[in-house]
Amino acid sequence: MSSIWNNGLNISLFGESHGKAIGVVIDNAPPGFKIDIDNINNFMKRRTSIYNIETSTKRKESDIPNIISGIFNDKTTGAPITAIIENNDKISHNYDNIKYTPRPGHSDYTYYKKYKGNNDYRGGGHSSGRLTAGIVFAGAICSEILKKYNIYCGAHIKSIKDIKDSLLNPTNISLSDFEKIKSNVFPVINKHIEKDMKHIINKAKEDNNSLGGIIECAIIGVPCGIGSPIFKNLKSVISSLIFSIPAVKGLEFGNGFNSTLLTGYENNDEFIINDNKIKTLTNNHGGILGGISSGMPIIFNVAFKPTSSIYKSQKTINIKKFKNDQIKIEGRHDPCIVPRAVPVVEAAGYIAITSELIKSNFFS
Amino acid sequence: MSSIWNNGLNISLFGESHGKAIGVVIDNAPPGFKIDIDNINNFMKRRTSIYNIETSTKRKESDIPNIISGIFNDKTTGAPITAIIENNDKISHNYDNIKYTPRPGHSDYTYYKKYKGNNDYRGGGHSSGRLTAGIVFAGAICSEILKKYNIYCGAHIKSIKDIKDSLLNPTNISLSDFEKIKSNVFPVINKHIEKDMKHIINKAKEDNNSLGGIIECAIIGVPCGIGSPIFKNLKSVISSLIFSIPAVKGLEFGNGFNSTLLTGYENNDEFIINDNKIKTLTNNHGGILGGISSGMPIIFNVAFKPTSSIYKSQKTINIKKFKNDQIKIEGRHDPCIVPRAVPVVEAAGYIAITSELIKSNFFS
Amino acid sequence: MSSIWNNGLNISLFGESHGKAIGVVIDNAPPGFKIDIDNINNFMKRRTSIYNIETSTKRKESDIPNIISGIFNDKTTGAPITAIIENNDKISHNYDNIKYTPRPGHSDYTYYKKYKGNNDYRGGGHSSGRLTAGIVFAGAICSEILKKYNIYCGAHIKSIKDIKDSLLNPTNISLSDFEKIKSNVFPVINKHIEKDMKHIINKAKEDNNSLGGIIECAIIGVPCGIGSPIFKNLKSVISSLIFSIPAVKGLEFGNGFNSTLLTGYENNDEFIINDNKIKTLTNNHGGILGGISSGMPIIFNVAFKPTSSIYKSQKTINIKKFKNDQIKIEGRHDPCIVPRAVPVVEAAGYIAITSELIKSNFFS
Amino acid sequence: MSSIWNNGLNISLFGESHGKAIGVVIDNAPPGFKIDIDNINNFMKRRTSIYNIETSTKRKESDIPNIISGIFNDKTTGAPITAIIENNDKISHNYDNIKYTPRPGHSDYTYYKKYKGNNDYRGGGHSSGRLTAGIVFAGAICSEILKKYNIYCGAHIKSIKDIKDSLLNPTNISLSDFEKIKSNVFPVINKHIEKDMKHIINKAKEDNNSLGGIIECAIIGVPCGIGSPIFKNLKSVISSLIFSIPAVKGLEFGNGFNSTLLTGYENNDEFIINDNKIKTLTNNHGGILGGISSGMPIIFNVAFKPTSSIYKSQKTINIKKFKNDQIKIEGRHDPCIVPRAVPVVEAAGYIAITSELIKSNFFS
Repeated sequence: MSSIWNNGLNISLFGESHGKAIGVVIDNAPPGFKIDIDNINNFMKRRTSIYNIETSTKRKESDIPNIISGIFNDKTTGAPITAIIENNDKISHNYDNIKYTPRPGHSDYTYYKKYKGNNDYRGGGHSSGRLTAGIVFAGAICSEILKKYNIYCGAHIKSIKDIKDSLLNPTNISLSDFEKIKSNVFPVINKHIEKDMKHIINKAKEDNNSLGGIIECAIIGVPCGIGSPIFKNLKSVISSLIFSIPAVKGLEFGNGFNSTLLTGYENNDEFIINDNKIKTLTNNHGGILGGISSGMPIIFNVAFKPTSSIYKSQKTINIKKFKNDQIKIEGRHDPCIVPRAVPVVEAAGYIAITSELIKSNFFS
Repeated sequence: MSSIWNNGLNISLFGESHGKAIGVVIDNAPPGFKIDIDNINNFMKRRTSIYNIETSTKRKESDIPNIISGIFNDKTTGAPITAIIENNDKISHNYDNIKYTPRPGHSDYTYYKKYKGNNDYRGGGHSSGRLTAGIVFAGAICSEILKKYNIYCGAHIKSIKDIKDSLLNPTNISLSDFEKIKSNVFPVINKHIEKDMKHIINKAKEDNNSLGGIIECAIIGVPCGIGSPIFKNLKSVISSLIFSIPAVKGLEFGNGFNSTLLTGYENNDEFIINDNKIKTLTNNHGGILGGISSGMPIIFNVAFKPTSSIYKSQKTINIKKFKNDQIKIEGRHDPCIVPRAVPVVEAAGYIAITSELIKSNFFS
Repeated sequence: MSSIWNNGLNISLFGESHGKAIGVVIDNAPPGFKIDIDNINNFMKRRTSIYNIETSTKRKESDIPNIISGIFNDKTTGAPITAIIENNDKISHNYDNIKYTPRPGHSDYTYYKKYKGNNDYRGGGHSSGRLTAGIVFAGAICSEILKKYNIYCGAHIKSIKDIKDSLLNPTNISLSDFEKIKSNVFPVINKHIEKDMKHIINKAKEDNNSLGGIIECAIIGVPCGIGSPIFKNLKSVISSLIFSIPAVKGLEFGNGFNSTLLTGYENNDEFIINDNKIKTLTNNHGGILGGISSGMPIIFNVAFKPTSSIYKSQKTINIKKFKNDQIKIEGRHDPCIVPRAVPVVEAAGYIAITSELIKSNFFS
Repeated sequence: MSSIWNNGLNISLFGESHGKAIGVVIDNAPPGFKIDIDNINNFMKRRTSIYNIETSTKRKESDIPNIISGIFNDKTTGAPITAIIENNDKISHNYDNIKYTPRPGHSDYTYYKKYKGNNDYRGGGHSSGRLTAGIVFAGAICSEILKKYNIYCGAHIKSIKDIKDSLLNPTNISLSDFEKIKSNVFPVINKHIEKDMKHIINKAKEDNNSLGGIIECAIIGVPCGIGSPIFKNLKSVISSLIFSIPAVKGLEFGNGFNSTLLTGYENNDEFIINDNKIKTLTNNHGGILGGISSGMPIIFNVAFKPTSSIYKSQKTINIKKFKNDQIKIEGRHDPCIVPRAVPVVEAAGYIAITSELIKSNFFS
């Protein structure tokens, strides 16, 4: 196991979906940074089902973090920052049937085997997407630190099923692009496709079904030279966080899988001095060369599978009786997790960059 | 930085492309496993340009590892296993021009900035693809350990540009599938496309250009319950290794990005008891659920960009003079790295699984 | 920084002496172990000033842990175990004078410099001995796990100033020895010296002064072969925890510093088969050979300096005004920390051994 | 296990006493530091039996490191620095008898149990004191880095058995103190006791016996504010390295165990502004307060037990036959390891401080 991510920052997640509370400890944050609690709460709100009311589960958690350490006189102290987020809207009896009849697509079966039946299975327990609230809190703290240096991370829904949003301009992204996306509850660039996306999400919901999609994320303002070689290179560091988000199936940097369709000459990004800065003419590389930031926007796409919890009857097995069975999932679930996952992906980006900036002595 | 990968195994890579030697330390391998040196050498050979003679660079390194610790009486001792791999075929003067005029697509610029010009830039120095020989050595050691338990990792070229190989059957992969692929120097399933793939690679070479492609990799025999929650889940662990391989642009597990085009009902893999074992009817999830192995084949795709080193003239900048410039790359380079990357991807798979098996007390 | 201890277990401490709460996350505890909350509370009680009423500070914290994750149906789940311990009896205004006039012997000055004045200085903040409540909680959880295997850790006050307790018999220690020590509030073997020790502690208190002492600790039931070579050997692992306890000045294993007065022939512990077990005739080595447990009792001594907080006027400096000054400490403080440190040392022993047993696949 | 030390620097040790070679990888050294190979070789020479000819084993290894990575144009590159040190003077047949009849005081028995008989037992294999040559190499690299900042580490023999050297002045230590000690092969302050110490060492040798002793070590020039709270505090970091040195039985900082004999008022070090710097009047604390450097000399004592290898017949057991036995050790051994351990302790000091300076952004 490890529910601790060790890097420049150390992030320790704890809690279960239907336990008393979940939370996070952020170790090694730099001291002396002003933390605006309203900004933290606003970042966290974007992940809640209360905010994403049109496309989300009926479980309503306000996710107001109770900060119990590491902030003193509104500033980071350098000591671990801890937030507790209570679980208030639990209906746990819905999960009585999943202990021995694992839900397809979920971790019920694999956790049962790993933990020999001792895991808290209610709502997925420790493996629940609910734990991402802790990631968002940590990302929000990082965003407060990085804004001083004009480093920002923003994301949008690139696609829901086959409906596609416009793309960020890989060589030219500004804070106002991110602000425009965030000004709408449903985070897309092209507002005209919002209706279509919501429509198919709601159609899936009516069908007792679910949908997935892709999130495009960019980080701007990162200077050239951040990251480490080989195993702690920026791609590895970002990927280790992104694949820690439940339901993620794929990750690509820059032009990613499409780079395989180009020749080297087409794919290489030539260097040029522009506006008195060293830049690349194109940004197929996605802001990372040899695992180190190039100064161009860092760009990556994240694929989220359709929500595993659907209300249709599905084949499963009874582990205890070792026989085939059926399950019809109860409980309250998101028909599409993608809109709520947008701030989670951003948070992962903020955490990764802050961690590497710490290791690069950026804050000294 | 870190050129050490810390998990159940700790893998420490060192060396530079044009230094005396490169190498690897494998810390925490379980004791008492027989290591057949011929198997190690054969695994490593598959990565060499000598073996991949038709599609590779003219730099010819035999890559025979000199094992200097950790093996005693042909068995692992439990102490660190160290291998030194000499650099014998160096022509370093070709790199005089890249110190201040970074090659597009390479780490020259970002390393220069990070290390303030102190890095060994010859052939990419420590960031060279040559370092993957150490990864392959570590993977070969792991494969010797895992074969006792019938756990195998195999990969093939899924595509070069737009030419596609057949796919592995996600629900039914056997050792003989891997052996068939390896029986040919050019690792594809469908031998009929070999000629086409080689043709476009050689065409690119003649054009002073390069190509990329996708590798499909599978790991079979992994029991259900291996891996850890959240940050050290199997996807994160595999991804942190895969994105440590130079030129990797994307990674997806199971049906990956395509899962976003399905509904939850289509994408979920239902459970069934078959042949007295718990299986899933389909394997869209790619053998990992909630970050833990499900017992189904673990499957992932890795995108490699076209080789950055091409012989065409490209725009670049002179860092020292801070002005625009041109570069025409010299040296010896692979027109397509994908065939030689196949054993590297397999090695990463072997390392990841061995590491997690160690943490799951599998070898006790 | 790091307030996370990474080993087989990962222990994350957080909180400040005068913040809302302190706490601990224990990551990677094995699943399926019954946790008796009464035992946990009893272990923690031994550290409180309420229990050690005769020799302790007047700050009265009951230290009842609020367990918010990782325990389900009274058993460990394998997910992180988190406990929050509230700070209820704070009088923070006493610390207004120490922000710029650091207390001799304390971390006020060094924390001020490290954190550039942003640290929570009240009562030492994050560096307070109060944080050891989290260590004790973690140790108590470990003791619940290890008792199933008859592995126990016990400690006693070896000395207060120059008054000495009897010693444990290094070759023959049983659970009943530990129980006898714990049956008394003041943890000594020889009850006749209790009065003398308490007398000098109270004398020091009346003098506005303080005392230190040595704690002897033993761990029994650890099988031979536990621990790791070189950097994670048992001595290093134990020492990294012991020196994390505030006020610790020294640590020695077995006959420790006295071994330097013996010849090799006198100091070596010869092996013998006794009672059908391999043992050593003597136990100068203290149960650890080459960093690995030998099966003999693991024994170590820990030196605690006299409490730094005393009520006498002392020379100090004013950091802000950069001039010499005086300080007269207010607040409530222990005249001697040693009695309350006994369960902390035991907890460190339990954590170290549990961690290494995890890495040795003991619980599989 | 772990033969890797992870901190600001990561130090990976490998090799066995009678294998091909031993060595070390130093990961994360800052780039751009000039490394004078003569200084490295001189530091390493001080550990050799060739240099310590009067008091050492007859095994003669020159220990010239072969640096194969990480240094380019005589400067650190930022990539891992690797050194290989060959084993040239091996006589391995002397160890045939120890595989099943473990030597008292050595790791033979515990390694046999841990590694189930697979370890390389010749000369202690991976647990041999010979591995400390890698620590000394790493320390020598660090000393080259730190000398630019006038940070120095020096040590001397504080005692051999009951013969005691003079002590360093805890409040006033200069580089010339260290140079005076090093100017003599036998590292003591008071040259008058050199003869006595050598005499008892040689007497022990004639008696087929051995001796131990204490080393006093100081680090000067470390600014206030270096180190981390709780688990990575400077004491824990130093202790984790010191207890990784074979034969170490105890460690104390500042006045250490003796602090327990003082009152708080006697033991506290009052602050004063002196020579326009903040200092303490005394240095009982040994330069570390709350785990962070205070700016005063960092001072610690390390106890080394008498060499376990003696030529007298000793009781042992035969593990395979499970019966009592006798052993008379052959091979070549040091009658007293303390003189050769002096540079090892210094190296540990250099590594610890460099690591913490890296984490404190000192080199940015």
